[in-house]
Amino acid sequence: MVEKIDHPVKKVAIIVAKGSIEDVYAGLIMANGAVMEGIEVKLFFTFFGLDAITKKRQNKLKTATVGNPAMRMPGGLPFPTLLGMLPGVEAGVSAMMKQQMLALDVPPVDEFLDMIVAGGGEIYACKLAFDMFKLKREDLSDHVIDVITVGRFYELAAGEGSQIIFT
Amino acid sequence: MVEKIDHPVKKVAIIVAKGSIEDVYAGLIMANGAVMEGIEVKLFFTFFGLDAITKKRQNKLKTATVGNPAMRMPGGLPFPTLLGMLPGVEAGVSAMMKQQMLALDVPPVDEFLDMIVAGGGEIYACKLAFDMFKLKREDLSDHVIDVITVGRFYELAAGEGSQIIFT
Amino acid sequence: MVEKIDHPVKKVAIIVAKGSIEDVYAGLIMANGAVMEGIEVKLFFTFFGLDAITKKRQNKLKTATVGNPAMRMPGGLPFPTLLGMLPGVEAGVSAMMKQQMLALDVPPVDEFLDMIVAGGGEIYACKLAFDMFKLKREDLSDHVIDVITVGRFYELAAGEGSQIIFT
Repeated sequence: MVEKIDHPVKKVAIIVAKGSIEDVYAGLIMANGAVMEGIEVKLFFTFFGLDAITKKRQNKLKTATVGNPAMRMPGGLPFPTLLGMLPGVEAGVSAMMKQQMLALDVPPVDEFLDMIVAGGGEIYACKLAFDMFKLKREDLSDHVIDVITVGRFYELAAGEGSQIIFT
Repeated sequence: MVEKIDHPVKKVAIIVAKGSIEDVYAGLIMANGAVMEGIEVKLFFTFFGLDAITKKRQNKLKTATVGNPAMRMPGGLPFPTLLGMLPGVEAGVSAMMKQQMLALDVPPVDEFLDMIVAGGGEIYACKLAFDMFKLKREDLSDHVIDVITVGRFYELAAGEGSQIIFT
Repeated sequence: MVEKIDHPVKKVAIIVAKGSIEDVYAGLIMANGAVMEGIEVKLFFTFFGLDAITKKRQNKLKTATVGNPAMRMPGGLPFPTLLGMLPGVEAGVSAMMKQQMLALDVPPVDEFLDMIVAGGGEIYACKLAFDMFKLKREDLSDHVIDVITVGRFYELAAGEGSQIIFT
């Protein structure tokens, strides 16, 4: 494990643009994995991804039970679109997915952000999406350092060994 | 603001692979933000993203009212899947989203591409998707420089401080 | 064609996180295009993307006939959500899309992976998603080199001229 790595990844600038559980977790897992490796992390939430840093919504994210043809029933059978559409099913499947995450030590979104920030990760909101959704600063998680433009995001993404990751 | 940036982002090679309003705008906003910072921009449209550079379709993009569990009603309540499914609702929500964009000075797709190209951004179409959808060159926006392979895209993405962003 | 490229893309570390045909093919096409250019390729399958390297599922991927407002009828008309919902329609459209791919010499997923691996590409599965979906090693394609953490993925993504691409 004392493998010397040539040109290691030193920074990840992760954009979270979608608001379903699986899309948000994909971004947070990439961020947390980086923090644990000592890689610098900048998280930029935009469009529906803003839900993940909006206090009232961040722990109520849902999974898409329609529009995801890879979704499965508990036994592994395909998940019928007509079923995914029914009121209550989306909530049920979402709850099940959150429990599976917990069983694997993946915490709820707000606690996951706590962990990432404690490890040195920085959290930003996209100004354009913030204005579009008519949010107020107090709607956002206290971890949000600033509401910034895309141009400022590119400045934060600078650096040798930096990777922009759009999830 | 005379902050000197180490290893700045100098080029972004942005892939737009999806055709909903929010996915296309995500790519265009990343591109426009880069142009405004003096960053070189290459935009590569593939799969359903080709709609954004297809003349007849680029200003008729729609938002996904189903399959996006983060979608909300105007007052902030969850958007029921059964409602999103009804004919007319998708068109209504899409029109509303475009108006919100306009109110924030985000132009329609064709004008947005005009702006990006005027700022030096370059636009390419993916040959494989172009063939798959049986498009003709005249179907595409006049801004399209060429219809290229993925291999050629990687060549265009070369350069120090370059970032590939798949939206 | 003897164009000398400055700072060429030398490696792509591609993350496939979604399981629909179009999302999986997007990742594989980016990977194959890289292999053909002599670019080093690491493919990392996570979340629903794992279906693409799960033996029983990799050739049964489906397209999303709902939740994709860019989806079209064969003649080019919009695809009504109510139609996409009906049992059988998703399967029919998925079969049609696979045939179009074949007509363009894009092989089925398992053969496509064969090609990428034959060209030197390496395939990895995400440990977290693997555990979450309760998979066993024998469920996965024989091409999978290892089931790895996100931290290990970042190590594999290291190198000058490397690009992380999240599809």
